[in-house]
Amino acid sequence: MRIALDAMGSDTHPQPELEAVVEASKRWHDPILLIGPEDLLKSSLAHFQYDPNLIQVIHAPEVLHMTDSPARTAKGKAESSMAVGMDLLKNGEAEAFVTAGNTGGAMANALFRLGRIRGVKRPALGTVFPVQDGHAILIDIGANADCRPIYLQQFAVLGAVYAEIVLKKTNPRVGLVSNGEEPGKGNSLVKETFPLLEGSGLNFIGNLEPKELFAGQADVAVTDGFTGNILVKTSEAVAKLLSNLIRSEITASPISSVGGLLSRPAFRRVGVTLDPAEYGAAPLLGVQGLVFIGHGRSDAKALINAIRVAREAVEGGLLSALEIAISSRL
Amino acid sequence: MRIALDAMGSDTHPQPELEAVVEASKRWHDPILLIGPEDLLKSSLAHFQYDPNLIQVIHAPEVLHMTDSPARTAKGKAESSMAVGMDLLKNGEAEAFVTAGNTGGAMANALFRLGRIRGVKRPALGTVFPVQDGHAILIDIGANADCRPIYLQQFAVLGAVYAEIVLKKTNPRVGLVSNGEEPGKGNSLVKETFPLLEGSGLNFIGNLEPKELFAGQADVAVTDGFTGNILVKTSEAVAKLLSNLIRSEITASPISSVGGLLSRPAFRRVGVTLDPAEYGAAPLLGVQGLVFIGHGRSDAKALINAIRVAREAVEGGLLSALEIAISSRL
Repeated sequence: MRIALDAMGSDTHPQPELEAVVEASKRWHDPILLIGPEDLLKSSLAHFQYDPNLIQVIHAPEVLHMTDSPARTAKGKAESSMAVGMDLLKNGEAEAFVTAGNTGGAMANALFRLGRIRGVKRPALGTVFPVQDGHAILIDIGANADCRPIYLQQFAVLGAVYAEIVLKKTNPRVGLVSNGEEPGKGNSLVKETFPLLEGSGLNFIGNLEPKELFAGQADVAVTDGFTGNILVKTSEAVAKLLSNLIRSEITASPISSVGGLLSRPAFRRVGVTLDPAEYGAAPLLGVQGLVFIGHGRSDAKALINAIRVAREAVEGGLLSALEIAISSRL
Repeated sequence: MRIALDAMGSDTHPQPELEAVVEASKRWHDPILLIGPEDLLKSSLAHFQYDPNLIQVIHAPEVLHMTDSPARTAKGKAESSMAVGMDLLKNGEAEAFVTAGNTGGAMANALFRLGRIRGVKRPALGTVFPVQDGHAILIDIGANADCRPIYLQQFAVLGAVYAEIVLKKTNPRVGLVSNGEEPGKGNSLVKETFPLLEGSGLNFIGNLEPKELFAGQADVAVTDGFTGNILVKTSEAVAKLLSNLIRSEITASPISSVGGLLSRPAFRRVGVTLDPAEYGAAPLLGVQGLVFIGHGRSDAKALINAIRVAREAVEGGLLSALEIAISSRL
């Protein structure tokens, strides 16, 4: 198996990427393609101990910046690490591509260079996140701010295939994110999507409020990219506000400070449970290739997890399963 | 000042309501109208010590149920405590009405019995919630699942007046909830609303991501009722998931259990900071009367806080300020 990693994606590139490929090559003994400026990467790799047969540097002289417009990154920068990574997928030289670069740039490059799976109206970005006693995938979290019901129906299909193959869920439960549980609740998009999901052949469990989502009642939560983005960012912001509050209240008195010290390992375990770095990167589903987009803040651990998830997707035959699931519903 | 309280609203009515009116009458020495079945309320009040000049029971024989459809509650149940409360407002017998009943029923009754402030397209439900170092109002959180840009512009006006008068913010900062900070980010509703807010004369600070909202960068966060509802419910669900995780990790080892005991007062203070009961009830803004809708789970403390907030709104002249702010923009 060959996974390709964008060496220039993360905010502190290429250091986390270098550490990640070296560790991944030791862990899985499969060749990894590291994409970026050849001289820089080769001289940086010289500081590591690794098997040179397992890490292949692929030259990509251009670097994408967060300020580059997505369209420009796709069409104007054909030699960026992002563009070269997509081309490796397209040419079959890699089976999955992992990047922690600009999400808009990754989506534009994927659409422009790989295209969509036949029949897919709009590719969507998923994210796997922790719920009570497990994980769920939320899709779309930002690829499509404005959606039509048929897009959401397809997101449900893409998400369910992902949940089966990567999250190893049998007959995954699919819920439609809404402002009330009862059928008939929702905005007009949700109301129009509901019957499409009922008739989709998926294991549709109906509308899903956030409390049921976080309680683990669904494996796949379907929503438009605007709502999904707000949902994910709200959960991150609330978790941060809460931990700030807890920290400042605990350090406010000597007794609770001691209490805080004694419970520190417990807090650390909670942090691990909630750490997005544990779940790898966000899969871009519906394009003609396996693309995983990590957070710009990704460190080596997050990138290794992303590579691990990408490997599981390749091993499970995710791309052809997605193709089959979509084409069987055309 | 006369505040009217629905005695039959909360899930465990009328006990929390009875405790709340008795306490409020002692705290503020103003008459309170308690609305519900007269015999029941009078015999229940007999168990309390209170000044009978300050608590007036208003007979309302019918009770709304959570399962009643909103339209039916408004038109078919003219003698429910909800309907009678709205009529008291309409007839000038009370200056604000507080209920912990069915939100849909309260909105339908308010629209049917009070009507809208002249010029208001759609009344909206706001909620005040804790952010880093303060509070903000989010509007709409559920009255309007489908919105047009002009509705959101009016929500901004209603929310800004509320922030000025009740939250005591000078020149409140108004943000538009979006999936990115930059102008041009958002779904089509957000993109079309942005220039309306720029031209509104409000202190518009642009698009607002959840992390900025919870960091306290705005006093008023404007959104459609679907997104607002998901945002509020996500923050409740994440806070609950986090506290469950912390509790189970802390009790998992003897040392961290001791730590948890020592830090318990700190956790309690965090709980108080985040407790929705601290912020009273959700104001329904844009109807021709001051209506506050509490959570069905409201206890006496939440109801007293709701009465306190309703009093502040009356004292600040909220209703006429809303009327002036809307009419000056027609």
